[in-house]
Amino acid sequence: MEIGFIGLGKMGMNMVTRLRRGQHRVVVYDRATELIKQAEQQGCVGATSLADLASKLAAPRTVWIMVPSGAPTEDTIRQMAALLAAGDAIVDGGNTRFHDDLRRHAELKAKGLHYVDAGTSGGVWGLANGYCLMVGGDRAVVERLSPVLTTLAPPNGWAYVGGPGAGHYVKMVHNGIEYSMMQGYAEGFELMAKSGYDLDLARIADLWMQGSVVRSWLLELAAAALKEDPKLEKLKGFVQDSGEGRWMIQEAIDKDVPVPTLTMALFTRFRSRQEQSFAEKMLAALRNAFGGHAVRR
Amino acid sequence: MEIGFIGLGKMGMNMVTRLRRGQHRVVVYDRATELIKQAEQQGCVGATSLADLASKLAAPRTVWIMVPSGAPTEDTIRQMAALLAAGDAIVDGGNTRFHDDLRRHAELKAKGLHYVDAGTSGGVWGLANGYCLMVGGDRAVVERLSPVLTTLAPPNGWAYVGGPGAGHYVKMVHNGIEYSMMQGYAEGFELMAKSGYDLDLARIADLWMQGSVVRSWLLELAAAALKEDPKLEKLKGFVQDSGEGRWMIQEAIDKDVPVPTLTMALFTRFRSRQEQSFAEKMLAALRNAFGGHAVRR
Amino acid sequence: MEIGFIGLGKMGMNMVTRLRRGQHRVVVYDRATELIKQAEQQGCVGATSLADLASKLAAPRTVWIMVPSGAPTEDTIRQMAALLAAGDAIVDGGNTRFHDDLRRHAELKAKGLHYVDAGTSGGVWGLANGYCLMVGGDRAVVERLSPVLTTLAPPNGWAYVGGPGAGHYVKMVHNGIEYSMMQGYAEGFELMAKSGYDLDLARIADLWMQGSVVRSWLLELAAAALKEDPKLEKLKGFVQDSGEGRWMIQEAIDKDVPVPTLTMALFTRFRSRQEQSFAEKMLAALRNAFGGHAVRR
Amino acid sequence: MEIGFIGLGKMGMNMVTRLRRGQHRVVVYDRATELIKQAEQQGCVGATSLADLASKLAAPRTVWIMVPSGAPTEDTIRQMAALLAAGDAIVDGGNTRFHDDLRRHAELKAKGLHYVDAGTSGGVWGLANGYCLMVGGDRAVVERLSPVLTTLAPPNGWAYVGGPGAGHYVKMVHNGIEYSMMQGYAEGFELMAKSGYDLDLARIADLWMQGSVVRSWLLELAAAALKEDPKLEKLKGFVQDSGEGRWMIQEAIDKDVPVPTLTMALFTRFRSRQEQSFAEKMLAALRNAFGGHAVRR
Repeated sequence: MEIGFIGLGKMGMNMVTRLRRGQHRVVVYDRATELIKQAEQQGCVGATSLADLASKLAAPRTVWIMVPSGAPTEDTIRQMAALLAAGDAIVDGGNTRFHDDLRRHAELKAKGLHYVDAGTSGGVWGLANGYCLMVGGDRAVVERLSPVLTTLAPPNGWAYVGGPGAGHYVKMVHNGIEYSMMQGYAEGFELMAKSGYDLDLARIADLWMQGSVVRSWLLELAAAALKEDPKLEKLKGFVQDSGEGRWMIQEAIDKDVPVPTLTMALFTRFRSRQEQSFAEKMLAALRNAFGGHAVRR
Repeated sequence: MEIGFIGLGKMGMNMVTRLRRGQHRVVVYDRATELIKQAEQQGCVGATSLADLASKLAAPRTVWIMVPSGAPTEDTIRQMAALLAAGDAIVDGGNTRFHDDLRRHAELKAKGLHYVDAGTSGGVWGLANGYCLMVGGDRAVVERLSPVLTTLAPPNGWAYVGGPGAGHYVKMVHNGIEYSMMQGYAEGFELMAKSGYDLDLARIADLWMQGSVVRSWLLELAAAALKEDPKLEKLKGFVQDSGEGRWMIQEAIDKDVPVPTLTMALFTRFRSRQEQSFAEKMLAALRNAFGGHAVRR
Repeated sequence: MEIGFIGLGKMGMNMVTRLRRGQHRVVVYDRATELIKQAEQQGCVGATSLADLASKLAAPRTVWIMVPSGAPTEDTIRQMAALLAAGDAIVDGGNTRFHDDLRRHAELKAKGLHYVDAGTSGGVWGLANGYCLMVGGDRAVVERLSPVLTTLAPPNGWAYVGGPGAGHYVKMVHNGIEYSMMQGYAEGFELMAKSGYDLDLARIADLWMQGSVVRSWLLELAAAALKEDPKLEKLKGFVQDSGEGRWMIQEAIDKDVPVPTLTMALFTRFRSRQEQSFAEKMLAALRNAFGGHAVRR
Repeated sequence: MEIGFIGLGKMGMNMVTRLRRGQHRVVVYDRATELIKQAEQQGCVGATSLADLASKLAAPRTVWIMVPSGAPTEDTIRQMAALLAAGDAIVDGGNTRFHDDLRRHAELKAKGLHYVDAGTSGGVWGLANGYCLMVGGDRAVVERLSPVLTTLAPPNGWAYVGGPGAGHYVKMVHNGIEYSMMQGYAEGFELMAKSGYDLDLARIADLWMQGSVVRSWLLELAAAALKEDPKLEKLKGFVQDSGEGRWMIQEAIDKDVPVPTLTMALFTRFRSRQEQSFAEKMLAALRNAFGGHAVRR
């Protein structure tokens, strides 16, 4: 089928490549013209502006937006909505908080436009393996997108999961689980590194991939990372987070659901980014105050 | 090769079956004679006692012990050790705390016997897939066991990981990670169950198996469990633990390693087994005391 | 001085009593006329409506609002603002999220009105001991309230802590700390209850009040509660929360600050209100799936 | 009464001072002779050795041991036991794991000696305020010590809490609660420090001492510490722990009691002592592996 695609970053370009391999007609736009040229070399049709992109698609149009979450996505949707006509559809493939999906779906609906939220997992490996796609919105509209979703995903790798926001909701939970799993592995490998045994961590990660209960794709990646840098001496433990973990905790609080491992995983990341922890200083100050315990200055 | 095998429970019988498929000569013993008969039907040689088992093996003998951890394993090893001769080897394939391995290795060494600790993962699926085996002890002795380890494990599925206790140490950490992962999934699925969307949890678990970052064998099992009982209405949230998680926390404390997600996962299990939580009553009592907040009686 | 007071619930009535003891002229309103009558018996001036209350105060007027947080407070402020004149001040003494204070302060300022946020601690004991008051807003306006604040608080028991929202911010953190402390005691007393020693928990709580590091007002309350019901057999561990703990976690997430004990304290309350935990069922299901471990149905 | 006192460190010397103020006859020993001299200046009787100390006391003798926990205490008790006679009593006033108390009580009993475990709280403030003493052992023996306990403690500040080990058990729980409380305050003050408001933390700590729900002795100390160093710029967040927190977690695990805040408080201390966290590096490595997210090297 035919699709407009906005955002040719790390994720977007790979997705466009996959769409072209699937023989779809893809009209692309990005603020960086060199990225548009790169996409044209793969057989995409380049657009010089959002308006140009809209004009190069036949109704009913579908435009997939894959730009950074937050303001960039919001702005792009707003601009695009002004250029589209009743019956057209916008797909937000980025990481959006589901509350925003609900709002946007209603706003666009008032203009006769469709809004689809597609949670996308697979990272840099999606090009080769396909992207796992969790899709929310109106079912009929999502069905219309079926050809591109099927191309982007591995076999059985996309699903309509529910109404507006459901796609990003499921993706948010997906990422929250990812945090817990990563943290679980991280704790285990730290302990093994300090076990007193001279354990070959990469070998163990590899070994566990063969029939153990904890085998997973993340463990496969752990094995590769540990093979390259067995004691992780080459990098710093400075760990970013991209928002979904926070949103999931907030949603869990809204729904009275305990999510202790997710929360501990996020807090570990917070701590990793502090050079000095005020809380820990406070503990030192209090120990000194009641017990005269020495402090380091 | 030839091996003695003690303990024909859920795990043991499957392992014996796999060993027989690998054409090993397996002399078996269990307190339950019907299990011995069952093993004989698979071509094992039944023994009527531990002494009989010892007498039916040629030196240097190898005896694999697969009985419940704790006292049963300890007793069996003690009795078996008295029946073996210098150069023979005992393999503990169960869940033993690594401190006990260190002690036993030294005790048996003093008698000229070898002791190998083999952490075994794979559960009820090990028969078909093979068991992931993490093996500790003296390297030369473990090498001697290589034929049976190769038969029990999937390809590349066993490894010598280090000196005495290392096998069970790695298995302990493996299980601790398992707790964190399970808890991570459990938190995520609970939130989805309460999301307000009518999410098909089994379908989502399945979907995530296709290219997502959180794909794992546990997730595959989750998909199957949710397919059978989509809202988990048929079971109680009463969750046992088999010890390794506790040991890992205690070892983490001994090594000053923070293991927050593992700990939260274990505490969730503790809580699941309480009908009434004293701590929660205390919170209710305190809220009532300072704020006059109503309590339920 | 003179003050209008809206909301004669558990907290409000006690505060009015304290204000009257301090010889202030207090004009009161509540939807429940019997509460107005009760206040009149203490020398308050009853009002029949918000408008009547406004008319019975001299400019510049001060109106203290002590109604349930959320919609009731928001509505009362909106209605009162329409009845007041430039230079008048509204004090929100309830539990309001500081973001709402910032918004309201700006909205009222646009109408020439002042808005003060007063975090109030002390519970049912405030009548006798005085209320600890953390006050935010414009400093000059807060100074104007100094006579009533001084009456409401114990000696040195109120402070201007910062601009709009600061009072409720500090109160929010206060309550978050309260959660951690309560949970800390609850964990400790549960362990003592299960120690195997026949410990007299009320006696121990009392004992710790004499010179120990953990002495606190909450511990004093714990001693009293345990004296009344030594094994806490008369109540259920169903623990509500009134919002500030949630807000503090969300604010901590916004500021990248790890707050693990607060979070665990809140999640314990969530769990206390679940009859059945979906997450725990999921754990049971997974254990059964990989290990064939029995489940309870 | 008369008492032997071994160990004149920070705690011991203050306790001896208090005992002398109470007119007790105190025979002291310490490996540092200058400390013995210092005690003699307070009217204590100095001993030149443990044997000398034993010889300077009349039967039935009581010897209070206040030396570092672990090996020093164990050794001192062993040596002292060899010098005492049936009916004499040893008091361990330090921080001992209750399992050791149980063992020692039995060992000494076999020799006709009494063993009392006295958990001692109060820190450097105990000299002025008295020490809160939680005492375990045989009730009749503890009663015999009543005069010295009464002198050491504030009014109502000591109690017989139960059989052998109960004193140190209660002290262990006391310290675990202390960890949770300290951590709760630390989290709250860190958030206030990062609130964006220019909050005067020392003033707020002080304010909360006046009638608020979170008032406590630790908060009083926090106020003092923050007054001295309002942003805690002069010290490092390197936080030691003295063992009881670890023991309490291990005991909680033995008794299936969830202690999440205590555990998080201990893990925060562990993390405070790590320059580089292996776990956090692992998280960074995994994020890089699946998402191509940049790492810091």
